[in-house]
Amino acid sequence: MALEGRKINFAAGPAKLPEEVLLKMQEEQLNFNNLGVSVIEMSHRSKEFGVLLNETISLIRELMNVPDNFEILFMQGGGTGQFAAIPLNLKGSHDHADYIVTGAWSSKAADEAQKYIKVKKVFQPSKPYVTVPDQEKWVHDEKAAYLYYCANETVHGIEFTPTAPESHNVPLVADVSSNFMARPFDFKDHGVVFGGAQKNLGAAGLTIVIVRKDLIGKEQGITPSVFSYKEMIANNSLYNTPPTGGIYTTNLVLKWIKAKGGLQAIYELNLKKSGLIYGIIDNSNGFYHCAVDKRYRSIMNVCFRIGGPSGNDELEEKFLKGAIERNMISLKGHRSVGGIRASLYNAITLEETQVLATWMNEFEKQHNTN
Amino acid sequence: MALEGRKINFAAGPAKLPEEVLLKMQEEQLNFNNLGVSVIEMSHRSKEFGVLLNETISLIRELMNVPDNFEILFMQGGGTGQFAAIPLNLKGSHDHADYIVTGAWSSKAADEAQKYIKVKKVFQPSKPYVTVPDQEKWVHDEKAAYLYYCANETVHGIEFTPTAPESHNVPLVADVSSNFMARPFDFKDHGVVFGGAQKNLGAAGLTIVIVRKDLIGKEQGITPSVFSYKEMIANNSLYNTPPTGGIYTTNLVLKWIKAKGGLQAIYELNLKKSGLIYGIIDNSNGFYHCAVDKRYRSIMNVCFRIGGPSGNDELEEKFLKGAIERNMISLKGHRSVGGIRASLYNAITLEETQVLATWMNEFEKQHNTN
Repeated sequence: MALEGRKINFAAGPAKLPEEVLLKMQEEQLNFNNLGVSVIEMSHRSKEFGVLLNETISLIRELMNVPDNFEILFMQGGGTGQFAAIPLNLKGSHDHADYIVTGAWSSKAADEAQKYIKVKKVFQPSKPYVTVPDQEKWVHDEKAAYLYYCANETVHGIEFTPTAPESHNVPLVADVSSNFMARPFDFKDHGVVFGGAQKNLGAAGLTIVIVRKDLIGKEQGITPSVFSYKEMIANNSLYNTPPTGGIYTTNLVLKWIKAKGGLQAIYELNLKKSGLIYGIIDNSNGFYHCAVDKRYRSIMNVCFRIGGPSGNDELEEKFLKGAIERNMISLKGHRSVGGIRASLYNAITLEETQVLATWMNEFEKQHNTN
Repeated sequence: MALEGRKINFAAGPAKLPEEVLLKMQEEQLNFNNLGVSVIEMSHRSKEFGVLLNETISLIRELMNVPDNFEILFMQGGGTGQFAAIPLNLKGSHDHADYIVTGAWSSKAADEAQKYIKVKKVFQPSKPYVTVPDQEKWVHDEKAAYLYYCANETVHGIEFTPTAPESHNVPLVADVSSNFMARPFDFKDHGVVFGGAQKNLGAAGLTIVIVRKDLIGKEQGITPSVFSYKEMIANNSLYNTPPTGGIYTTNLVLKWIKAKGGLQAIYELNLKKSGLIYGIIDNSNGFYHCAVDKRYRSIMNVCFRIGGPSGNDELEEKFLKGAIERNMISLKGHRSVGGIRASLYNAITLEETQVLATWMNEFEKQHNTN
C-alpha cells in the first residue's frame, strides 16, 4: 500500500508500522470500538480495556506458540529496564549469571547486571562485533542463574541463526527486541524472552516480557515493584497503569501479523527481503561490504559499507542523499559503526525493499570501478 | 466542542484528552509534520524528534514557571516507578525520609520506599482518609533526605490547598500525578516534582520528573539506569528509547493549555467546575455527602456519596445508570471508597460539568426526601 506523502522508512527503531495499523488507529482516534472515547482515554481497569489486554496476550501466545508454562507480561522501561529487572528477578540463591556478549546491546546488558549479580562472560568479546564465537570454546557453568544472549544485535546486524545458543542446562534469557516475531521462535530451554515493542510490534514505551512460571517469585528485596515479575503477574500487568495506547498499537500489529499468515509467512518474506539486499552485496565484487559472518547475518538489520571494508565516506553520503531523493529515509548506520543500515522489519514490504535494491544496483553501476 | 459519538468521560485516569489534541493526532497519524512518517515511527535520535522533545521540555518550563535550577526529565514506569526511584536517587548519606500519608497513593509510596531508605511518617495515618492533619502536630526532622507528599490523592479527592506542606528545611517531594498543571505551582522548597501524564497531560506510559539540580548524582549503586536521574539528565531523557508517542501527545496538550491562557486561566476554570459540583453537594441537605475536609477538597476529583455519609447502594446505582443514559461515563468511585467520583481534569469543559450538575439536581429532586 503506497499512501500519499509517506516515506519508505528503514529506521532501526522506533520503526515503520504497517499502514493498515496506522489507518485503523486513525479511524478510532476519537472513538475506540464505538465506546465514545479514545483508547488512551479509557481506564485501564475498565472491562473493555481488560478485553483488549487479554486479547493481546492471547494473540502473542498464539502467534509465537508460547508454551503454557510461560506468563506474558506488559511492562515499562524498555529492554534497558529489563537489563536490571532480569538479575533482580532471577538471581535467587545463585552467585552469578553467564553472558554472551556479541554486540552493543548484550554488552550494555552485562554492564547493568553487574549491579545485581556477579557477571561472567562465556567468552571475551572482541571488537568489531562481527560474529558469534564457536560455542565449543565457551566457558560455561551449570551453576549460573541464567545464560543471557541478544537474539539480534541491532547495531551490528548479528543474529543468532538458525537457533538459540546451547543452554548449558541453565535457563536462557533472550533479548528479542529487534527480531521479535520476525521468525518462528522455539521456547525450548528459555527462561525469559523479552523485547521492546518499538521495532516489530508497535510503539516505544511497551516492553513485552515472557517468563517461565517456575522462575517467578525469587526476586531480590531491592526490586522496584514495577520491575517485579511476581507483582506484574499477580495483577495481570495492571500493578500500575500500563502504557494503554502501546498495548492497543501492539494489538493491532499482532492482528496484522496473523492476517499475513503468522510467523512462518512473515519469516519467509523476511528471508526474501534480506536475501535480496545481501545478494546485491555479495555480487558487488566488494563494492558493498558486509562485515558480519555469513552464518549470523541478521534478517532484520542489514549493515554494510560502500567502497570497501572501511567504507568510503563520500560514496556513502552520496548513496544516502540519492536514497532520500528516491523517498527512502533512515538508512544511515549506527554512529558507532558507520556506513549503511537497512532495517527490514516485518512492516517493510518486499516492494519497498525492491526500491532499495534498485537504487543499490543503480549506484553500483555508477560508482563501482572494480 | 461536541463531536459525534463522544461520551462525557469523567474517568480518574487514564482520562479525557482535549478533542483538539485528539483531532491533531488523527490528522498527523500517518504523516507527522510532513515528514512522511508517523511520530511513533521516527527515530528518537533524529533531529526532528529532538526538536519535539526540546519544545516539550520548554513548554513545561514556561507553563509551570519551572526555575532554572531544575531539570525536566521524561521517564517510564509511572508514579509507581518513582516511588522507588525517589529514595534510590535521593537517599545519599541520609538515614531516613519523612512521609506525609494522606491517602492510598502516598501510602503506597511510603511502602515502596522502605526497600531503599528508612521511612518515618510525620503522623500516624488514620482511615478513612478525609483530611490533612494539623501541620503543627507533625513530628518532623531536619535530617531527613526529603519530605514526601501527594499533592492530590486521586482515590479520596484530597488536595493540598492552597499551598504545599511546610518543608521542615528538607527538600519537598511532590507527587502531582492527578493535579499536574491544574493550577499554578510554586516550586519553593521542592526537590522533586513528578507525575504520570495520563490524567492532565497526555497518555499513560510517560512520567514527567522535575528535579532540583543539586540533588542529582547521589543515587544508590543499585539504581536501575532507567531510574537514574543522573543518567537521564546526561542524555536529555534519551538514555534509552523514551515513549516517543507519549511525548508527542503531551506536547500537544501543553500547546492546548497555552492556548487556553496558561495555568491561571486553567485554574480559574477548574475552580468553577469543581465549585459547581461541590455547591450542589453542600446545598443538598446531606443528600449528597462529601466526606473530605472542606479545606482540602480536590478541584480534580470530586468524591461523594448519595443518600447519606455511607451512601445508599441502590440510589448510587440508579444515579450511575441515569448518568450513562445522559452520555456520562466513568463516574463510579474507586472500589476502595465506593460512591461517586467525578474527575474534572483540565480537559473536562464547563459545559460537560454542567451536564453533570443538571443530572445531580434532577436526581436530587426525584429522590431527596429530606
